[in-house]
Amino acid sequence: MADPIITLTTDFGTSDHLVGSMKGVILNINPAAKIVDINHSVVPYDLLDGALSLANAYSYFPTRTIHLIVVDPGVGTSRRPILVSGEKHFFIAPDNGVLSPIYEREPCTVRHITAEHYFLNPISPTFHGRDIFSPTAGWLSKTFQTEAFGEVVTDFVRFTMPKAKSDGQAVRGVILRVDAFGNLMTNLTADEVPPDVIDGGPIKLAVNGKPVVKFARTFASGVQGEPIAFLGSSGYVEIAVNRGSASRALGANRGAEVILDLS
Amino acid sequence: MADPIITLTTDFGTSDHLVGSMKGVILNINPAAKIVDINHSVVPYDLLDGALSLANAYSYFPTRTIHLIVVDPGVGTSRRPILVSGEKHFFIAPDNGVLSPIYEREPCTVRHITAEHYFLNPISPTFHGRDIFSPTAGWLSKTFQTEAFGEVVTDFVRFTMPKAKSDGQAVRGVILRVDAFGNLMTNLTADEVPPDVIDGGPIKLAVNGKPVVKFARTFASGVQGEPIAFLGSSGYVEIAVNRGSASRALGANRGAEVILDLS
Amino acid sequence: MADPIITLTTDFGTSDHLVGSMKGVILNINPAAKIVDINHSVVPYDLLDGALSLANAYSYFPTRTIHLIVVDPGVGTSRRPILVSGEKHFFIAPDNGVLSPIYEREPCTVRHITAEHYFLNPISPTFHGRDIFSPTAGWLSKTFQTEAFGEVVTDFVRFTMPKAKSDGQAVRGVILRVDAFGNLMTNLTADEVPPDVIDGGPIKLAVNGKPVVKFARTFASGVQGEPIAFLGSSGYVEIAVNRGSASRALGANRGAEVILDLS
Repeated sequence: MADPIITLTTDFGTSDHLVGSMKGVILNINPAAKIVDINHSVVPYDLLDGALSLANAYSYFPTRTIHLIVVDPGVGTSRRPILVSGEKHFFIAPDNGVLSPIYEREPCTVRHITAEHYFLNPISPTFHGRDIFSPTAGWLSKTFQTEAFGEVVTDFVRFTMPKAKSDGQAVRGVILRVDAFGNLMTNLTADEVPPDVIDGGPIKLAVNGKPVVKFARTFASGVQGEPIAFLGSSGYVEIAVNRGSASRALGANRGAEVILDLS
Repeated sequence: MADPIITLTTDFGTSDHLVGSMKGVILNINPAAKIVDINHSVVPYDLLDGALSLANAYSYFPTRTIHLIVVDPGVGTSRRPILVSGEKHFFIAPDNGVLSPIYEREPCTVRHITAEHYFLNPISPTFHGRDIFSPTAGWLSKTFQTEAFGEVVTDFVRFTMPKAKSDGQAVRGVILRVDAFGNLMTNLTADEVPPDVIDGGPIKLAVNGKPVVKFARTFASGVQGEPIAFLGSSGYVEIAVNRGSASRALGANRGAEVILDLS
Repeated sequence: MADPIITLTTDFGTSDHLVGSMKGVILNINPAAKIVDINHSVVPYDLLDGALSLANAYSYFPTRTIHLIVVDPGVGTSRRPILVSGEKHFFIAPDNGVLSPIYEREPCTVRHITAEHYFLNPISPTFHGRDIFSPTAGWLSKTFQTEAFGEVVTDFVRFTMPKAKSDGQAVRGVILRVDAFGNLMTNLTADEVPPDVIDGGPIKLAVNGKPVVKFARTFASGVQGEPIAFLGSSGYVEIAVNRGSASRALGANRGAEVILDLS
């Protein structure tokens, strides 16, 4: 059988020992584990940013991959640690809603992790990533017996992902995130864009009040400097500027308003 | 037997080929090696920052893990490359004191690495990480025969970690580092904090001349925006602002003065 | 046999899910693959920067390593995906010249990747890294049968690496890149520097119009603050300031002019 895979997504950054410590804990429990970083530069304490990072990546991993995500503003308080079994993958996280997009997409069984004998001892009140979540991932990767970690709960925390809203005249949405190229990911999906636009027609889009009038298959078909909308690789409409930064060109960051004129 | 683990800690950053080259060298010698990054964003040339990164992470790794650290302002000069056997782990580093916290914590045998037949040829005077340290790690991970790499030395370089000092009236320390959240790690340990404070009492702390009056189990118990002291996950008193940056709130960076009033 | 090694070099950054998704795709196809990051902070869309990152690292990896590089401003347009067999390594890239330094150094066989049954379905027009290049790497790592992926082509894109030019009086070159320490890598090689300089003599170098007069084996032999030229670990002349940033000291960034006075 292949070595078990554990992915890590955190807001810890990569300029100190935090992520390295977590990897040490996992490998000390299961030296066969294959640890893969998804993203450690989640915006600090930002559940939506963490949720999107994991949601856009997890399904590409093999069946039985264990996805560990620690974006945990409530660490050390009464918020619970949870272990979630989805259709093909496992998720370990604080119970703060950071797994909401997973709950939206597939049936999940959620357990409250209470099997303290698996935890490190003592437990730092500020680093459950190392002392609770990593040991859980390490031990789970040896047996995949989720029932050993705690009881099923149904009152887990979930939030609604921000959805674009249409009133028939216009669709209103927001910029969900900005990537390393300055591309803007909106929360509009293919369902909200008229078919003739998807087929390459003109679009009437206002991003942070600035017009975007071209929709294409890829940003690379744009004239240099021209903002272009396209259906991005995660299923959302994105805005890019060919060989430039759409964020800078449109002065738009996360949370900026996006209006699609349907008239 | 499990695949050997080699961790890497450097100040090389991750925006060029340096770390990748080191991994190539290691895998070319021992394709079975499991390489784990601890931190490549050590402050350039900063021995204390590198020492803290490794010291806070290494003990979580399995027995026989090889920890390679390259923070090496003296590369190409007469400073020696060393191989250190601790109680459970091995360390490969330049002999410049970057392993000082390891020497403080456990009995160590230090060897001067002189077995040049293991090195790459030619050796670049500016990249011993690739040409000396990585090959040593790769070969060591195949045999764990430390005596093959050079003789034991006792005149290795060590520095004293900056300690907080008490005069009975007050404890004076410094900020050792700032993490990705803007949390401030001081060099005060639990030993220097009165028991009633540890138990949740008020504290009289001045950080960069600004007052911090609350001590809690975790930063998450603070009101948003309020600076809070707590015992951090590495055993040092830390200052955080719940969902904010203590560094920004207190205008404090590494080296800033910390005074604990004991009166 | 050892697990197959796949290296990744991209301009995707490490603050979102992009690189993680690629790793998931590879591991889903070949769970035995050992994935190694070379550099994900290539300057966005910058073929030269990507080319240098890979060129300076690839040869240190074991025979049969698969090097995947995605710096791909033309993604989704008619530019072809290619699979290149060099002397000891394989390369998977967009056909945009990013492999030019590899073509310069060793005989290569270049194939146009057309075996669509290996690709993900559907293919995002903006993320061939995930949907075309990663699956190709995953499948190649199982069989190493390059002929299964497409026909040999000879009209692949290559550009000439910027070379320093001598008129007998002076050698004119440029800064190719700036590393994390602020060191400046020029495109002058040992061949262009007079032997008495290499042996430690004085040098007459102007970097961005500012003089550099010392040539040494290593930057560490410089007085603190003094700019020093030396032969860097990748074979190019570099300029550094001992424990400082040459880029800042000389006001020089990528593209800045470098003139070596031979008189």
